[in-house]
Amino acid sequence: MAKAVIIGAGLMGSAMAWPLRDNGHQVSLVGTHLDDETIDDCIAGHFHPRLGRKLPEGVRPFHFKDIDAALEGAEVLVSGVNSLGVRWMAEILGPRVAAGQRIICVTKGLEVTDDGGVLTFPGVIEAGFPAALRGRIPVAAVGGPCIAGELAARRQTCVMFGCRDLEAARGLAVLFRTSYYHIWPTAELLSLEIGVALKNAYTLGVGFARGLSEREGGSDEAGASMHNLASALFAQGVLEIGRMTEVLGGTPEFAPVLPGAGDLYVTSMGGRTVRLGKLLGMGKSFAEAREIMAGETLESVEIVRAMGRLLPHLERRGLASADDFPMMRMLTDLIDGKPVRIPLDTFFRM
Amino acid sequence: MAKAVIIGAGLMGSAMAWPLRDNGHQVSLVGTHLDDETIDDCIAGHFHPRLGRKLPEGVRPFHFKDIDAALEGAEVLVSGVNSLGVRWMAEILGPRVAAGQRIICVTKGLEVTDDGGVLTFPGVIEAGFPAALRGRIPVAAVGGPCIAGELAARRQTCVMFGCRDLEAARGLAVLFRTSYYHIWPTAELLSLEIGVALKNAYTLGVGFARGLSEREGGSDEAGASMHNLASALFAQGVLEIGRMTEVLGGTPEFAPVLPGAGDLYVTSMGGRTVRLGKLLGMGKSFAEAREIMAGETLESVEIVRAMGRLLPHLERRGLASADDFPMMRMLTDLIDGKPVRIPLDTFFRM
Repeated sequence: MAKAVIIGAGLMGSAMAWPLRDNGHQVSLVGTHLDDETIDDCIAGHFHPRLGRKLPEGVRPFHFKDIDAALEGAEVLVSGVNSLGVRWMAEILGPRVAAGQRIICVTKGLEVTDDGGVLTFPGVIEAGFPAALRGRIPVAAVGGPCIAGELAARRQTCVMFGCRDLEAARGLAVLFRTSYYHIWPTAELLSLEIGVALKNAYTLGVGFARGLSEREGGSDEAGASMHNLASALFAQGVLEIGRMTEVLGGTPEFAPVLPGAGDLYVTSMGGRTVRLGKLLGMGKSFAEAREIMAGETLESVEIVRAMGRLLPHLERRGLASADDFPMMRMLTDLIDGKPVRIPLDTFFRM
Repeated sequence: MAKAVIIGAGLMGSAMAWPLRDNGHQVSLVGTHLDDETIDDCIAGHFHPRLGRKLPEGVRPFHFKDIDAALEGAEVLVSGVNSLGVRWMAEILGPRVAAGQRIICVTKGLEVTDDGGVLTFPGVIEAGFPAALRGRIPVAAVGGPCIAGELAARRQTCVMFGCRDLEAARGLAVLFRTSYYHIWPTAELLSLEIGVALKNAYTLGVGFARGLSEREGGSDEAGASMHNLASALFAQGVLEIGRMTEVLGGTPEFAPVLPGAGDLYVTSMGGRTVRLGKLLGMGKSFAEAREIMAGETLESVEIVRAMGRLLPHLERRGLASADDFPMMRMLTDLIDGKPVRIPLDTFFRM
């Protein structure tokens, strides 16, 4: 049995406690400095307030101030922060990692550097390691359609674990795999991360269609909604995920499955990305929508902005033309507050 | 302007009247022998009862008995029957087609012959032509995410028109294309038809997950549903659509876009295929579910059965192994009334 430490008491990080405990591992859950109240509840009633359920028996909650105690003897670290916390996580882990450990990130997103480089979040975390440990501690990522609350309810879930070191991905899969948590290990970390990052962006488009429908007063007198439009946006999203994966040197095999279409489907079932897209579709400016959703972390906006920075670099390098990725360009315009018409006739160039 | 005749007054066939009329074509709508009451309403109040809205001005409704009058001078024929009516349509059209005509089918499905051949519905219709006309009258098909009522509401819709004769597909697209009906012509008729046929089957799987969730009493006390499972089934569906397309000699490019993922998404938004899947997920046997849905045409069942007949042929020919298409095999078991466990661990073999 391994000693696992989850850092970050958000939904997804915390949910990883269930398969780990069900497999008999020791599990500590360390909140970030923003999670103190969550951890208070976890300690007081062994109840996770954001997941709305009791923690599995035996999970040990820690406040951030006690992170060093929690990390003692840790073999597996789960990075449970969202995309805005990844740089922070790299700073926290850098001085604390030790040889023999393995790390897995639940965060969805990509970082685009000023010169147009693309970094996965495992890459960002690895860059924070002491030089002597770099390349020696495998850092993996989880991707695929997984609503945290369903994993914590032990409902059937299929994901991929990606790590450049395939054996490490396989080893981590063995630690987490249960009768309800099905894991496909892969060495294609970049392809996995592109899929799960971009689906957040493209879900905005699906939400946008729902917003347009509401703007027209919802279904019309004969019951017509705008599912055809939402589906076209969904399909173009899958197409652009595949294309971006190829442009960035990944495999085209993932976009149609778990980290692409699957993850886009689950995200489209609801949640804040759909809500933001809907507000934009209803005619709110991005600034207005942001105001309405004040206080909520919008990873979808981060990834659209990152892609907005990346596209000119890709064009300069001859990897994309100005006609490529029309839906992503529409999304960047939306986030930039520009007026938008969905450029349907530029879609589906195969 | 062309003279177009729609045969079959069902939802999808009838909806094609909107873009045709908006482009100024002459349009006649001929019911089948089963559509007499629908046509009565169309004649009496120029109102289509199943679409729940007024027909576009100028559409001329005909009872089946008047088909020959309706067909006089027809240049474009729209086959608007469902998959159970295609053989009938071939019999009706065979003796009536004339050189210079073009045909387009809205029907979704495939026919599997006893020796394991796969026929598209345009192929079935063409086979009914007099020998002298075979190959001279292009027969196309429509595919992609299109709820008929939304097309009739002139809501944004993206589809593909497939015809082995690409110029004919392009010409038909010109006749139908409007500001709300976007059409991508393709010569890859078979790939298009495989996608739109199979998505009906795989939508059963998505519905099945919803039924399992209801069987457990819906969302649990912390709000967990089974979207993760539905998404995994969705993704495996897209994967199997792509694989079947390749096995049958088509292009892998369609499964992730309009005729695959897009059409699967729109079908998953509701309707009878989801309803049937849900009943099965809730634990009803196929016989019970069929009884509950008595009188409804279940094209999804037809295509699952057709695939169930096809798979052994593919194995014999070495085109598929017994491990391939695990989700389709699950669906055939479901329809055969066998007990089913979703074989998640056999999914996503890439």
